[in-house]
Amino acid sequence: MSTVADPNAAHHPLDAATLLTPLKTDTYRGHTSTAYANMVGPFGGIITANLLNAILLHPQRLGDPVALTVNFAGPVADGEFTVTAKALRTNRSTQHWYAELAQGEQIGATATAVFATRRDTWGATEARFPAAPAASGIAREAPIGRAAWTTAYDMRFVQGQLDLAAQGAEGKDSVSTLWIRDEPPRPLDFISLAAICDAFFPRIYIRRPQWVPAGTVSLTIHFHADADALNAQGARPMLGTARALHFGRGYFDQTAEVWSEDGRMLAASHQVVYYKE
Amino acid sequence: MSTVADPNAAHHPLDAATLLTPLKTDTYRGHTSTAYANMVGPFGGIITANLLNAILLHPQRLGDPVALTVNFAGPVADGEFTVTAKALRTNRSTQHWYAELAQGEQIGATATAVFATRRDTWGATEARFPAAPAASGIAREAPIGRAAWTTAYDMRFVQGQLDLAAQGAEGKDSVSTLWIRDEPPRPLDFISLAAICDAFFPRIYIRRPQWVPAGTVSLTIHFHADADALNAQGARPMLGTARALHFGRGYFDQTAEVWSEDGRMLAASHQVVYYKE
Repeated sequence: MSTVADPNAAHHPLDAATLLTPLKTDTYRGHTSTAYANMVGPFGGIITANLLNAILLHPQRLGDPVALTVNFAGPVADGEFTVTAKALRTNRSTQHWYAELAQGEQIGATATAVFATRRDTWGATEARFPAAPAASGIAREAPIGRAAWTTAYDMRFVQGQLDLAAQGAEGKDSVSTLWIRDEPPRPLDFISLAAICDAFFPRIYIRRPQWVPAGTVSLTIHFHADADALNAQGARPMLGTARALHFGRGYFDQTAEVWSEDGRMLAASHQVVYYKE
Repeated sequence: MSTVADPNAAHHPLDAATLLTPLKTDTYRGHTSTAYANMVGPFGGIITANLLNAILLHPQRLGDPVALTVNFAGPVADGEFTVTAKALRTNRSTQHWYAELAQGEQIGATATAVFATRRDTWGATEARFPAAPAASGIAREAPIGRAAWTTAYDMRFVQGQLDLAAQGAEGKDSVSTLWIRDEPPRPLDFISLAAICDAFFPRIYIRRPQWVPAGTVSLTIHFHADADALNAQGARPMLGTARALHFGRGYFDQTAEVWSEDGRMLAASHQVVYYKE
């Protein structure tokens, strides 16, 4: 997808972790990757990237992703999985997909997606590009040992870093703003952008810095980047910002925006997260 | 679902427009309603409400909706349709669904949903309840003749009403804030809340007041209301606010929040809308 020369791209851990082998019509085989492991099962962003990749690889695929929703149905065990992707309806410029990640008969995640061929139109951005000092002036946050996937990202926090050692000193809000890119650097494509949309820690940990069980049940990504925007971005850091809207009765929602360094909105994501407290 | 006494509830146009008759396992028959017609085909909110209702009616259904995504795959013609809803995975407290609305072999809309039984937990709201004068002091906006569904809502605008007669005088933003309720009044349930989440006009019309082809392709709703919150709301007006994040290359996204009169967040919705300009 990218035109940026990168001799290591084929060997990047993200490519290994989203490698799918065709099994039969509409069905691919994949494998979990230790590089993207989370505390229990794989990082949700890598499940999302695999579901999206099955559609991107599909011979019937038309255009680029516009909307993707992934529901995390249950734990995914380390090992092999299958991804099935079906084009449900193809129109002149849009295409509607359903996809599933399964292990045996057990469904681990479901997805729906809208793909489209895009045209030039009037455009404008109403969301506000967050104020932030340059990434180069901020130290990389140390990865979290218990969440191996954090090693796969270079995160530099402007605001709202994870600090579970603060133990219950409740913050005024759950906002985080950070520079983020794949580590090692990798030219941005829809796969990596989708995974990064799930790289914002559950907001409960920012608002109330103490460990509680929490996990995303539903993730929606709205893609604003097209191929040109991805190529322009290359492997440079993106500016992400995330905040919760409402916490209540075991579920909260959080919204994130991913921006290019020069203020182009690349994607927005919205997720619902289970928590116990 | 509601405990509010309302002798007319069974005869409300929304109930008629979401009436589903079981056909066979997982499958229901429904019918479009002139009361919720849009310029082309039905109002997206009523398609959403029918997909949700098929899950709510399903004998295997567990708990209440937490997340719902509907992708609008193509035009739905006036007349009968089928809705199929399948429980894909049932866990201890969550349940994952896929649903489809079809006419013959043609899929009109797809949906995925997460349902859950909710428990009391710590809670907080970070989104800001919009400042607004009381609904009673604002005149009801006249329904739009070409969009019959607008007759089914009482909308009272605080900011950002639709004014296509302004013809191209571009506004500074796409924000609308309004009081909204079913017309005639009807006790709130998940069906009506879901439909209302799609009742915010495409933001392109607020930002650039001129008619252009536009239509939602994907709608995600995150439900914060539980049964208690719905009962507390009853048939009173809700405060809604909507804004676009980014317009570009034929698609924009818009986020909406629906609040009770006393500042309780009932739902957030996020949609991607096709536009041509």
